[in-house]
Amino acid sequence: MTGTSETRALTELKQKLSETWDLTMIHGLLDWDQSTYMPPGGGPARARQSALIAGLAHERRTDREVGRLLDRLRPYEESLPYDSDDASLIRVARRAFERASRVPPAFMAELSRHFNLSYQAWAVARPQNDFAGMAPLLQKTIDLSRRYADYFSPYDHIADPLIAEADYGVTAAEVTQLFGRLRERLAPLVRAIVAMPPADDACLKQHYPRGEQWAINESILRSIGYDFERGRLDVTHHPFMTKFSLGDVRITTRVDEHDLGYALFSTIHEAGHAMYELGIDPAFEGTPLADGASSSVHESQSRLWENFVSRSLPFWQFFLKPLKAAFPAQLGGVDLETFYRAINRVERSLIRTEADEVTYNLHVMIRFDLELALLEGRLAVKDLPDAWNARYAADLGVAPPDDRDGVLQDVHWYAGFVGGAFQGYTLGNILCGQLHEAALVSHPSISADCAQGNFEALHAWLGSEVHRHGAKFTTAELVQRITNGPLRIEPYLAYLEAKYVPLYGLD
Amino acid sequence: MTGTSETRALTELKQKLSETWDLTMIHGLLDWDQSTYMPPGGGPARARQSALIAGLAHERRTDREVGRLLDRLRPYEESLPYDSDDASLIRVARRAFERASRVPPAFMAELSRHFNLSYQAWAVARPQNDFAGMAPLLQKTIDLSRRYADYFSPYDHIADPLIAEADYGVTAAEVTQLFGRLRERLAPLVRAIVAMPPADDACLKQHYPRGEQWAINESILRSIGYDFERGRLDVTHHPFMTKFSLGDVRITTRVDEHDLGYALFSTIHEAGHAMYELGIDPAFEGTPLADGASSSVHESQSRLWENFVSRSLPFWQFFLKPLKAAFPAQLGGVDLETFYRAINRVERSLIRTEADEVTYNLHVMIRFDLELALLEGRLAVKDLPDAWNARYAADLGVAPPDDRDGVLQDVHWYAGFVGGAFQGYTLGNILCGQLHEAALVSHPSISADCAQGNFEALHAWLGSEVHRHGAKFTTAELVQRITNGPLRIEPYLAYLEAKYVPLYGLD
Repeated sequence: MTGTSETRALTELKQKLSETWDLTMIHGLLDWDQSTYMPPGGGPARARQSALIAGLAHERRTDREVGRLLDRLRPYEESLPYDSDDASLIRVARRAFERASRVPPAFMAELSRHFNLSYQAWAVARPQNDFAGMAPLLQKTIDLSRRYADYFSPYDHIADPLIAEADYGVTAAEVTQLFGRLRERLAPLVRAIVAMPPADDACLKQHYPRGEQWAINESILRSIGYDFERGRLDVTHHPFMTKFSLGDVRITTRVDEHDLGYALFSTIHEAGHAMYELGIDPAFEGTPLADGASSSVHESQSRLWENFVSRSLPFWQFFLKPLKAAFPAQLGGVDLETFYRAINRVERSLIRTEADEVTYNLHVMIRFDLELALLEGRLAVKDLPDAWNARYAADLGVAPPDDRDGVLQDVHWYAGFVGGAFQGYTLGNILCGQLHEAALVSHPSISADCAQGNFEALHAWLGSEVHRHGAKFTTAELVQRITNGPLRIEPYLAYLEAKYVPLYGLD
Repeated sequence: MTGTSETRALTELKQKLSETWDLTMIHGLLDWDQSTYMPPGGGPARARQSALIAGLAHERRTDREVGRLLDRLRPYEESLPYDSDDASLIRVARRAFERASRVPPAFMAELSRHFNLSYQAWAVARPQNDFAGMAPLLQKTIDLSRRYADYFSPYDHIADPLIAEADYGVTAAEVTQLFGRLRERLAPLVRAIVAMPPADDACLKQHYPRGEQWAINESILRSIGYDFERGRLDVTHHPFMTKFSLGDVRITTRVDEHDLGYALFSTIHEAGHAMYELGIDPAFEGTPLADGASSSVHESQSRLWENFVSRSLPFWQFFLKPLKAAFPAQLGGVDLETFYRAINRVERSLIRTEADEVTYNLHVMIRFDLELALLEGRLAVKDLPDAWNARYAADLGVAPPDDRDGVLQDVHWYAGFVGGAFQGYTLGNILCGQLHEAALVSHPSISADCAQGNFEALHAWLGSEVHRHGAKFTTAELVQRITNGPLRIEPYLAYLEAKYVPLYGLD
């Protein structure tokens, strides 16, 4: 192949990938609008329009001409360094093409119909505490998840292809091993903390008017570096991040007027996701590289800003003053130590999304283990609520009063695959520990800078080590490049212990 | 053709038309988001994404399979009454297909590129008062407009195919004749009014805070029947209406804190457009019938609510009370008569979009005449500013101080065709006069109802006579059905005279 014909094939490939990417972005806008501003009457047509765009994107994702171009580009790819932009583009595009091509379009359509149906049923069944009503739909979801996985056989574990959707290259065996060791260390830490008098978070539970919360949250977002020229903040029922290009990465939040922490930390969490996408090399715009590396790497960024940064003492050495200025009546008499303890209150709880950073991972691991048991057939759907409740009693020492706040609480299994849905949250925390440790080694001033409201060094390090690469590397490749080794739980545990042992006066 | 094969062809046609329609709606959402909420960084990708969706829609609009289905459905269409839903669908789809198929895709792309370029240049040139800079682009626009028209030859007048874009079936000859007679009658009316002492509109020009204006405008919209379950109101630089389905028809406005009338009447104007779309038979969703009949029929609806209804005395007999409650300091001492005179102040002015309802049509007719002269080659681009200024002096008695507020003021010629751009505004006013007259004959209580804040009879009449038909009928067909005759200027003139003769104490 001559240079010119390579160039032509690459240009043609990029053109095709760009259309696929743009259709995916447009699909995202349809969803964003539906969650933020669409009036109720827009619902039926929006579902039809979303399905149309999803179908057009899927057609292009499996376009055989893309396969032919990828074949023609193989010698060129092999002539380049693995981490070059072009080789990475071709490699990541090939992976996406091959994965998409394994699954028949009719199966994809069945999946989409079923997930929609199941989601609608769950939205009704959860408030009614009706697990029995959901059981047949969940059984079908498990069957479809297995069938989906089978398109990717052979595999070591049936969950592997499902995990690969979110975290390419991560296996069930690896997660099981990491989670087992993490749980062994976390469980005694949680037990020790909850044996102590609980932190008093009454200062957060006063009346905080919506408008003032909104203003201070926007101001904090600006201070930590979220760029409102390339993003915006809106209200939705569940906070999320979404992007329509590398120049337009939006986040949403919800304000609870009786819980200052809710909007504050969920907004910073979503900004962590957004700043990752905004840091991707702009040259990747319109290609499959213009995305996060995986759901666990994404979660490492949101958790880093939410917990490692904005639940740290230095952060509030700087930000408590403007926060008090926004809420003089509520926070005037609250000192830094009290506020810091309040935002880091650890407690046994029922709801994953409301859990503190120490117990959070126990919630995730329960779900991961149950997913594997369901997929392997070791656990029947009818026995799931009991299994759930037993694990909550054993791991968290709490008993769900009903399925609404038990096995029905998360949307994931009721609107998507069983398997691969949850592990990213805790892998993200683990990875966050490693990244934070590595960043501090490179830039020991990061904590002191944070107390000055200065995040430049942290941004620069994350930008060059993580963000700019986009989807070039898998989770494992990225960890290897940065830490010269695999995923390790020790830095994360060290972070938790360094923070919570003094906070709760343990041993 | 058997009934079954007809049914199959019709189903297939509807499926194809629905995709085209949905892509057009999605294109609208990309535009709406760009005008309302998109951060600046989203611009470059949005242009690319809009072009992608426009291209996909155009492909489908000219899909030869649509042509074959339309051919197969001709006997079925001919077996049905002209105004049946199916016959109308096939007829209107065929018209759209045949028109779209006459123009080569490459020419469409050239047009779109040029309009984009010209718009960008105008956005810079207008504030700089730089007509000379725009002249070559305007010359190209005229050339492209002529070439576009030529794809539809033979025609009686070169503007006819351009007018048909907005108002199918209306001809330049017909408009010239109507406008000539209207101008003959309007000019003396305007002269008589401006010879009288001007109405005092100082009460509208006080400080009206944004938030209160927004609240009262939303409340008035609800009262006149705009359905916020199927629409919403947002802020944009220029007010507009757009729809994403028949269940989601949105409007926008802009608030001027020193001019109460701006947001008030522009919001009601856009609501008039929106209520038309919201009144279309829901069975037409996803078909080319789910649209207004033409730009003049659309304008008749917006003008009816903006002028005939909400600038009437009965309207404010009801609404001045809540308006005063919203602005007690500003309006507490203002009586109904003073307010009514203020909102109906007539004056010679330079800017079309700010003109009152009497002089407005003079602005439109100047543009229409100049368009014809440019297209016919009777007027050279370099002579356009002088021709513009001469007409403003003759017709409106004002001299534009510069081109910024003269020939450069409207975006139309700088972002679209020259020809067909303006006539719909005045045709809409003319038609509005006929519709209003017909509605009053059917429901003589409409004015009295209005003074009670009750618009039920008016909505019912507009719904059954105009709205529900969507795009089934052309402008002329609709006027014929409703008034048993053609477009006539007399009812509109009678309306103006009945209102303004007593208002200004003329003979």
